Amino acid sequence: MPLRSLVAGRWVAPDDDGRPVLDAVTGERVTSVSARGIDRGGMVQYGRSVGGPALRALTFHQRAALLKQLGLHLRDHRDELYQLSARAGATRADARFDVDGGIGALLSYGSRGRRELPDDTVATDGAVEMLSRGGSFAGQHVLTSPPGVAVQINAFNFPVWGPLEKLAPALLAGVPSIVKPAVSTAYLTARLVEIVDAARILPDGSLQLLAGEAGDLLDQLGEQDSVWFTGSAATAARLRTHPVVVGRGVRFHAEADSLNCSVLGPDAEPGSEVFDLYVGQLVTEMTVKAGQKCTAIRRALVPEHLVDAVADAAADRLSRISVGDPRDREVGMGPLASLEQREEVRRSVKALRTGAVVVFGDPDGVAVVGADADRGAFVSPLLLRAGSADRPEPHEVEAFGPVSTIVGYRGVDAAVELAARGRGSLVASVVTADPEVARAVVLGCAPWHGRVLVLDPDDAAESTGHGSPLPTLVHGGPGRAGGGEELGGIRAVLQHLRRTALQGTPATLAAVTGRWVAGAPQHPEPPHPFRKSLRELRIGDCLKAGPRTVTEQDVQRFAELTGDRFYAHTDPAAAAANPFFDGIVAHGYLVLSLAAGLFVDPAPGPVLANYGLEHLRFRTPVYPGDALTVTLTCKALSARADADHGEVCWDAVVTKQDGEIAATYDVLTLVAKEPA
Amino acid sequence: MPLRSLVAGRWVAPDDDGRPVLDAVTGERVTSVSARGIDRGGMVQYGRSVGGPALRALTFHQRAALLKQLGLHLRDHRDELYQLSARAGATRADARFDVDGGIGALLSYGSRGRRELPDDTVATDGAVEMLSRGGSFAGQHVLTSPPGVAVQINAFNFPVWGPLEKLAPALLAGVPSIVKPAVSTAYLTARLVEIVDAARILPDGSLQLLAGEAGDLLDQLGEQDSVWFTGSAATAARLRTHPVVVGRGVRFHAEADSLNCSVLGPDAEPGSEVFDLYVGQLVTEMTVKAGQKCTAIRRALVPEHLVDAVADAAADRLSRISVGDPRDREVGMGPLASLEQREEVRRSVKALRTGAVVVFGDPDGVAVVGADADRGAFVSPLLLRAGSADRPEPHEVEAFGPVSTIVGYRGVDAAVELAARGRGSLVASVVTADPEVARAVVLGCAPWHGRVLVLDPDDAAESTGHGSPLPTLVHGGPGRAGGGEELGGIRAVLQHLRRTALQGTPATLAAVTGRWVAGAPQHPEPPHPFRKSLRELRIGDCLKAGPRTVTEQDVQRFAELTGDRFYAHTDPAAAAANPFFDGIVAHGYLVLSLAAGLFVDPAPGPVLANYGLEHLRFRTPVYPGDALTVTLTCKALSARADADHGEVCWDAVVTKQDGEIAATYDVLTLVAKEPA
Repeated sequence: MPLRSLVAGRWVAPDDDGRPVLDAVTGERVTSVSARGIDRGGMVQYGRSVGGPALRALTFHQRAALLKQLGLHLRDHRDELYQLSARAGATRADARFDVDGGIGALLSYGSRGRRELPDDTVATDGAVEMLSRGGSFAGQHVLTSPPGVAVQINAFNFPVWGPLEKLAPALLAGVPSIVKPAVSTAYLTARLVEIVDAARILPDGSLQLLAGEAGDLLDQLGEQDSVWFTGSAATAARLRTHPVVVGRGVRFHAEADSLNCSVLGPDAEPGSEVFDLYVGQLVTEMTVKAGQKCTAIRRALVPEHLVDAVADAAADRLSRISVGDPRDREVGMGPLASLEQREEVRRSVKALRTGAVVVFGDPDGVAVVGADADRGAFVSPLLLRAGSADRPEPHEVEAFGPVSTIVGYRGVDAAVELAARGRGSLVASVVTADPEVARAVVLGCAPWHGRVLVLDPDDAAESTGHGSPLPTLVHGGPGRAGGGEELGGIRAVLQHLRRTALQGTPATLAAVTGRWVAGAPQHPEPPHPFRKSLRELRIGDCLKAGPRTVTEQDVQRFAELTGDRFYAHTDPAAAAANPFFDGIVAHGYLVLSLAAGLFVDPAPGPVLANYGLEHLRFRTPVYPGDALTVTLTCKALSARADADHGEVCWDAVVTKQDGEIAATYDVLTLVAKEPA
Repeated sequence: MPLRSLVAGRWVAPDDDGRPVLDAVTGERVTSVSARGIDRGGMVQYGRSVGGPALRALTFHQRAALLKQLGLHLRDHRDELYQLSARAGATRADARFDVDGGIGALLSYGSRGRRELPDDTVATDGAVEMLSRGGSFAGQHVLTSPPGVAVQINAFNFPVWGPLEKLAPALLAGVPSIVKPAVSTAYLTARLVEIVDAARILPDGSLQLLAGEAGDLLDQLGEQDSVWFTGSAATAARLRTHPVVVGRGVRFHAEADSLNCSVLGPDAEPGSEVFDLYVGQLVTEMTVKAGQKCTAIRRALVPEHLVDAVADAAADRLSRISVGDPRDREVGMGPLASLEQREEVRRSVKALRTGAVVVFGDPDGVAVVGADADRGAFVSPLLLRAGSADRPEPHEVEAFGPVSTIVGYRGVDAAVELAARGRGSLVASVVTADPEVARAVVLGCAPWHGRVLVLDPDDAAESTGHGSPLPTLVHGGPGRAGGGEELGGIRAVLQHLRRTALQGTPATLAAVTGRWVAGAPQHPEPPHPFRKSLRELRIGDCLKAGPRTVTEQDVQRFAELTGDRFYAHTDPAAAAANPFFDGIVAHGYLVLSLAAGLFVDPAPGPVLANYGLEHLRFRTPVYPGDALTVTLTCKALSARADADHGEVCWDAVVTKQDGEIAATYDVLTLVAKEPA
């Protein structure tokens, strides 16, 4: 039976059997794939009308909690996914990279969403911009969820990580996903979606699966929809220029071809630690997932005089890696994901060999452990060496398998120029112990790459490696690599959200964003706001306290108590000589502390602790004789789902007797949810 | 003589006379425009090889200073530009909008660049991400300048503001600009570029002018170049799908058609302040620049029962606006920019009239003051009224002139749906005194708009208006409006810069970014870092001071001195009952103050003042008996070009006797540039 698609809440079989998908190791039929007859328009409509409203009704924190729950649930189903991954050629280590990596993305977004986004359905971006002298007209950028769907078109090589790393930010953004896997490993994504669907954790319609060809899917999209594509540059170009994508301004993001390079610094000597790190990383990147990673090292840029030594050392390591059945513990590298991929790699290798010679491996065959080399999609790791640095092939041909080409360079500038000949890549690495080399390569390569890794003896033990995208760092690259950006923590969520500049009175800004802003209404009525629980507090609740006159004795006693005898607080003549002061000034921390003395309500109550402070600025000096008044206003509230308390941010303004502002800051407190 | 282009540092005439450009008022020939024979490939090459390296050699602060200087210089040439603007039909008010608006953008970016970007050629984006348990491997997003050019294709309606609002962020980002104005007002942009060029403020090659057709300009571009387009959606679609743009991943940004709407809240009654504000804004937006603003109100969405009243009130106001020679002080509205535009507007009005009736104005002619109505590009303001809310024309046809259509709606949800029928617009406004209506319209419209303005009696006096993009707020919109984003303060600079995730040791991160990060090398050698001037300080310079044991008496004396008698500091039993404390704790501000007492060096020296503090977090409680040690490390340095001092940011970590961290924060100080 062919794979089914998850369409509008139901698992639907296609109208025909479609294309058979074979086991990468044995050549046996695993399943077949087709999406004939699948109502793609209905999927888009269902996502928009059912999934979207359900997700948008949740706050960012509630969506983050779903991601966490989903990640923990999937952890319990890892083994099944590992085992299924072997049919696609993945060793256990390869499968962990895919499955654990995907779960890690869910958990990371679950955690970031809670920490970095508000417990609300609308978020703010940047500071309030005062747009008028009188203070009645201001601006604030707000982030809202588009009422559309995110179509996610994934590549075959990461059937679990691919969909999950795209799902996590979309879901956090309140956008329902339609996932379209690649044919050859669609059965893994389908199983993943079955597990997710059966768990009933996500709202209905927030995840649908199109297990087959895209067909007219893109024709269904509109201004509020987006497409997230991982695959070839040629397909990316075709989708990007699709009349509906262009005509309706569908947001299109691509992660495409990438001829990533790794640069060996000129400071490396054969046998040195740096040299060994370089060779070890190169061999790892060639063989993990049989080189089927868009982040693998395709170009090894090596000082000319070290080309032979690197080739020999890498060949030696490669010769010790067995190819074969990925279930076999002895096996270091499994087959490619499909026979089609083997054909594709062979074609690319042929193109590469017009400008390079093979220094390790057999382009035509490979000895295999525990499997039939003819029926499985096995290839040999292949290390090539470019005939010269001027040959175009290594910079243009991406053999999507265990294939890398060594290119010699003369001088760091030349290495940077060669790196740029990839015309935009996902990742570059430089292996060096020389900080100058590192800085030159990083700054030279940065505009051409989405990620740059500096590997040296100090971080080698803990480095996550050239080939690993991380949820907290952006993944994508300019030019040939597609120009898109995924992951990068909350950055990927922002890619989904719509940024809008809101203009109005401070009251309007506060009403829309749920955050108090200067100039918005304040509620100074009793009780003291520290006597209110999180449930009772409202933004704008405020307290004005003071005045408290600062005396010379206060400053002296503070200096004695704290040991802070800075001349501006202790020596009248020296203080007056300071360009900013007219004489003895109160310590900034004394001003803060006196303000706290004014606003704190001493008896036990809902306010449990002051856990921090932000954006403190001392605006004008406070001199003995000045009288301080503080206004404390409830600015933002955030309950914690998993605790009896939450965070309250208070706006604090300390003024002097003449109304001049002495200090402004935000006080961060923990407040009980309910009255005691 | 035709307009000349500024090509590779020289003013070059085209090979032919090209298209004549006529005075919008008199129909006289002003100049002619052609770019035949202009070496566009040479322009791109010159920008890349001369302008780019010169700009990238400057720090963000140095580039910001150039913007300020340029803005002040242009202020002195305003009158000449105002006068020339009249030939394109602009009244003095219209010309100010264009000229002063453009100068304002330069000055705003000059100021923002100094305040929000580092005095370096590389900037950081977001926080350091620790990627390992042991602390040896971390990540930091960096922002670098692409080694390419920004091609800026502007519309005819803002020949001064258009180029300047695009130039400012590009220049701040270190990217050279090639400006291509629209034919009908190219002489204004050309004069602007002449003034800029003659001032010799900008580095050679950082601004070039192509005064004529784009020709093969886009064919010259590559992965590091970008195109910034303002114009029609049809042209945007053509450029966006240009084979070179798609094939080489040229970054493409568009600001295109926009059927902006303004919603009158259902709370308005004829004669009310809200009602009058609405009508006044509508008439202003129709007639400023003769409605030739991409942000003008094209659709007036009005409660059904108020359609007649709005039509009557707007007609009354429109009838009092004279059309004619923009130099005439009596004239409220000048001609369109060209006869071609008049034809274009007439065609659009014809299309609109298939679904709407004219309620004010004459589609076929207009009485004109001080000019010949037949020779100038004059049109009458035209207010239409849609036959029904279901007619598609008002939501699809943009008549780029003094033309708006009133559409009746029933209920706020219907107003939001009608707004969305523009399929993505630059700006919407809602005029209401009801906060609920404001919130519903803002949140409903936000995903469809780049900007949303809430106008009410409280901000009306200071509002900058529906039609004014501001440098600090984003300008752009989804879908039909092009999907691009300009301005928005530093956001527009980030659109130019390339974001790259850098991974390595903390030492590597610090070496590349010029900012000390936790784990990077520290230099604790004497002298005390407060004895070093800005010139002498290096990131990583540090001081470790302590221990200082906190006593019960310290806490008591601090409570007495400051008045902060919060129970956790004064009542042992109550303190122990707090979920976070085991008994009496030291005040957080006492910890801060004692730390300052440890690190401050009392005698006069280069450190002049503590002006603030950021990111303070109290990590664990400090109890009487705990001994505090503080480590203060120089994190970032920034000299001020216009003062004898600069800012130094210090990383502060307060630990307890067991190494546990009590508090972390950044201390912000002003430090003299030179030793005394």
